[in-house]
Amino acid sequence: MSPIPQENIIRVEPQEAKIIDGKKIAEDIRGELRQQVKEWMKNENQRAPHLTAVLVGDNAASQTYVKNKMKAAAEVGITSETKQLPKTISEIELLSILTDLNNDDNVDGILVQLPLPDHINERKICNFVSCDKDVDGFNEKNIGRLCLDMNTLIPCTPLGIKELIKRSEIETFGKHAVVVGRSKTVGMPMMMLLHADGRHETGAMDATVTICHRFTPPSDLKQLCKMADIVIVATGIPGLIKEDMIKPGATVIDVGITRVFDEKTGKSKLVGDVDYENVKKVAGFITPVPGGVGPMTVAMLMRNTFVAAKKLAESRNDKFIN
Amino acid sequence: MSPIPQENIIRVEPQEAKIIDGKKIAEDIRGELRQQVKEWMKNENQRAPHLTAVLVGDNAASQTYVKNKMKAAAEVGITSETKQLPKTISEIELLSILTDLNNDDNVDGILVQLPLPDHINERKICNFVSCDKDVDGFNEKNIGRLCLDMNTLIPCTPLGIKELIKRSEIETFGKHAVVVGRSKTVGMPMMMLLHADGRHETGAMDATVTICHRFTPPSDLKQLCKMADIVIVATGIPGLIKEDMIKPGATVIDVGITRVFDEKTGKSKLVGDVDYENVKKVAGFITPVPGGVGPMTVAMLMRNTFVAAKKLAESRNDKFIN
Repeated sequence: MSPIPQENIIRVEPQEAKIIDGKKIAEDIRGELRQQVKEWMKNENQRAPHLTAVLVGDNAASQTYVKNKMKAAAEVGITSETKQLPKTISEIELLSILTDLNNDDNVDGILVQLPLPDHINERKICNFVSCDKDVDGFNEKNIGRLCLDMNTLIPCTPLGIKELIKRSEIETFGKHAVVVGRSKTVGMPMMMLLHADGRHETGAMDATVTICHRFTPPSDLKQLCKMADIVIVATGIPGLIKEDMIKPGATVIDVGITRVFDEKTGKSKLVGDVDYENVKKVAGFITPVPGGVGPMTVAMLMRNTFVAAKKLAESRNDKFIN
Repeated sequence: MSPIPQENIIRVEPQEAKIIDGKKIAEDIRGELRQQVKEWMKNENQRAPHLTAVLVGDNAASQTYVKNKMKAAAEVGITSETKQLPKTISEIELLSILTDLNNDDNVDGILVQLPLPDHINERKICNFVSCDKDVDGFNEKNIGRLCLDMNTLIPCTPLGIKELIKRSEIETFGKHAVVVGRSKTVGMPMMMLLHADGRHETGAMDATVTICHRFTPPSDLKQLCKMADIVIVATGIPGLIKEDMIKPGATVIDVGITRVFDEKTGKSKLVGDVDYENVKKVAGFITPVPGGVGPMTVAMLMRNTFVAAKKLAESRNDKFIN
């Protein structure tokens, strides 16, 4: 058999995944919000929406997170303040501060930065934040409403991922999505938004959904991920998702963010739960870390604050009329 | 090649599934409850737990369901009454009746039989039932607590299925369960109890869970069910699950119950969502319809009423002491 002439060999280069640029999409959303807030204030004669962050103790990461959120708020025209409280504050003192914020007509959104010190019951605190001002969507009643597909304030990270998927025009209807990680702030609400009925109030995504977690055997995890059209990972385990676990063309959303030591540079760097460099050779869409899901979480917090402000203004208005 | 002598051929008869006898298990549970209620009343000097059913209109099926529940109550030593209300009752009148029941110290459990007439908002009614007396577990706050793995009154059907699985000694830890149907009374809470952390308050089952629904393509449904160790079906589509969709030895739980015309007998009969006669040749465990999940739902309603009664008695006691 004579060799095939070189010019007749068509080399099909593997197509690399399209990078979902969360930083850019979040920027777009902040720009839209800025415009919407401005128009609402003008047309409805309203003060700016107001977000209050409650920060207990001096955890450096928490301080950075809150600072970034407040910066985003300023950018979209939301006023904000941070209540910096000592880590020795008692639960009852914290509850008393939350009572004031719940009752304060000048506050639209309340954000209690987690984690809280060990002597404070986080669940109790989350449930104490007024449902109407619960911009993190962590109050048990708001979680219940989300799970019943009802209009509510939805946790920012899953809401941001929904927005990423939507704006990247990735089909979810009847597709198979795998969520890896069953946390109550990401995995569980994500599974809700993915599987539920798009005709209901939350505008969910009508996907078939599998939830995997620490007790899913590695072989099952691989088999299920490999079947999925969409894989969303939120475990905090760097590099958990490898290229041989992903179906060619699938969408891979990486929620993980872990600081690791980089041997090449001798410096620390942030990595996700996905083996990004290799998975992007197989996937159709992929989010980078950092610059993927993270900025969307903050953008959704701003949107939730605006939604809360509009609803609270309406209810004050109704009270005034009646 | 000479033929193999007949006596050397070992015929392996396919092993039929073990039938999970829900009727018998429910009977056991009612017997246990009867004993527990009796001891509690004696030891704690309490009146019998009391369940009030609210039945609106004259739907024949609803009347039968309520009658069966009241019969089970009597059997375990729970006193009960049924408030039979006209289908023309207004929402506000119904809310007023619920206010009275919520405030009545002689009522431990309130059960509003669904469906309600179209002019009444079911969600509003479910949310109005005091969380402490919400023995159906339909209040949005109780749903939120379930989804956060917190101690709460859990919807009776998924709770009953959990009990069936547990008493049949079927392993769920790290297994793959497929839930077919995403209703808020069965599919969604079932997915919660199956996937969540067994170390938390709901004592969940630590399985990998896939939820399928009307928009899951039939080929995906088949492939996913075939992979599953446990398949739980609640769709109301008779015969949806066929033998070629089940992994040999898997557990199949059938929540469906539909009245169909039986050509053989010329009479109507009740069937589930599973092609029972054929699937039982493949499955390891299977629930019959009727006599599988149905009786468990009623038994769990009794357990929830007893749980509510104990908790309410404790809180009345605490009030008395303070």
